[in-house]
Amino acid sequence: MRMAELSTTSGFPVATIKFYLREGLLPAGVVTGRNQADYDEEHVKRLRLIRVLQSVGGMSIAKVRELLAAVDTPELPLLEVLGTMQANLELPSHELQGASDLTDARRQVDTVIESRGWSGWAGDPNRTEAARLIATWSTFSPTIPSPRQNDTLNAYAEAAEIVAERDIELVRQHADRDDMVDVAVVGTVVGDALFAVLRRLAQVHVSQKHFPPDANDPEPGQKGQP
Amino acid sequence: MRMAELSTTSGFPVATIKFYLREGLLPAGVVTGRNQADYDEEHVKRLRLIRVLQSVGGMSIAKVRELLAAVDTPELPLLEVLGTMQANLELPSHELQGASDLTDARRQVDTVIESRGWSGWAGDPNRTEAARLIATWSTFSPTIPSPRQNDTLNAYAEAAEIVAERDIELVRQHADRDDMVDVAVVGTVVGDALFAVLRRLAQVHVSQKHFPPDANDPEPGQKGQP
Repeated sequence: MRMAELSTTSGFPVATIKFYLREGLLPAGVVTGRNQADYDEEHVKRLRLIRVLQSVGGMSIAKVRELLAAVDTPELPLLEVLGTMQANLELPSHELQGASDLTDARRQVDTVIESRGWSGWAGDPNRTEAARLIATWSTFSPTIPSPRQNDTLNAYAEAAEIVAERDIELVRQHADRDDMVDVAVVGTVVGDALFAVLRRLAQVHVSQKHFPPDANDPEPGQKGQP
Repeated sequence: MRMAELSTTSGFPVATIKFYLREGLLPAGVVTGRNQADYDEEHVKRLRLIRVLQSVGGMSIAKVRELLAAVDTPELPLLEVLGTMQANLELPSHELQGASDLTDARRQVDTVIESRGWSGWAGDPNRTEAARLIATWSTFSPTIPSPRQNDTLNAYAEAAEIVAERDIELVRQHADRDDMVDVAVVGTVVGDALFAVLRRLAQVHVSQKHFPPDANDPEPGQKGQP
């Protein structure tokens, strides 16, 4: 297809597509004339991927470029592409009130990972990030004693394992490395968002179970309430 | 404490704190002199909350203001505060390729919710958002037949329920409405991020199980691989 059709099909303006071509985010088309090239389904698919990374993943174009460079390096193993993905999806780091909290939180993360028998390496930045989030969370719930907090972390880890099993299962249904990478990359971004939305839906269900929306309802949070 | 100390303790510049006071995000201090007021732990706590909503939740100051207005309305039930929260955390909406996909995806979402016995209302925008995400995801994995996709949605919903049960349990440990709201608001934002990080850690574990990182490893994705 011509550039005009690629633009209509993908929904990206011609100028944006030309920018992506210049920047190497999109492979060149097959040259068919002096100022003319032919594009195919692969180009449509790549543009769709760029859109998801930007809109659902909230990635900047610089981060999209870095990730696509990893995707386009066939020698790079799947796990390393996912590593690049993770680095580019990194949450904005936030300051902590006290460093001592972080040591405790980090110990909790390591304990949960060990008790679940997760492989991986101690230097994984995700462990530090998990510890930072737990430390931040504890700042707001100092009344929750530590064992309670471990229950929360355990429940989250159990749920994460269920999701991760499905995620990798989806990747394994593909034999071709490029397809696997595509499924993994899209699944990482879209899966995070899908889980967050389902969590909200489940929270409404569980809340209504515990705090029935009834005008004659007793004060919420009272002990002994079902 | 004086303004200068509030700034040091919270890590926010004095100018920012004054802006929040003017905008009503932070309640006024107790006036102790012509240009002097006294601030307390509640102010430190509120500033900490603003920081988490901005840095972890990625919320703009306009969205933080809207959420805090709901938090500061004592008559507003917890579920409605969470509703305001959800509306302000909304993912950037993304365009879809074909509307027909959305009908299918929406049917899948309703089916999963029904089969899990989740209460809630059909008009919940989270259902539409879940359908949009599933439709987007399917665009990239057209080889995955529909029952497979239901398996994925089911696994995600099961995991979401485990997390939501803990979330609401944490809220129920508090008797005071303001404490409940604080725990729920922080938990929503920090919980999303914590789950995403744990999902990455679990993915590494599950990947290594299926694709052992060995130099003599057969081509990943081959059938019959453990």
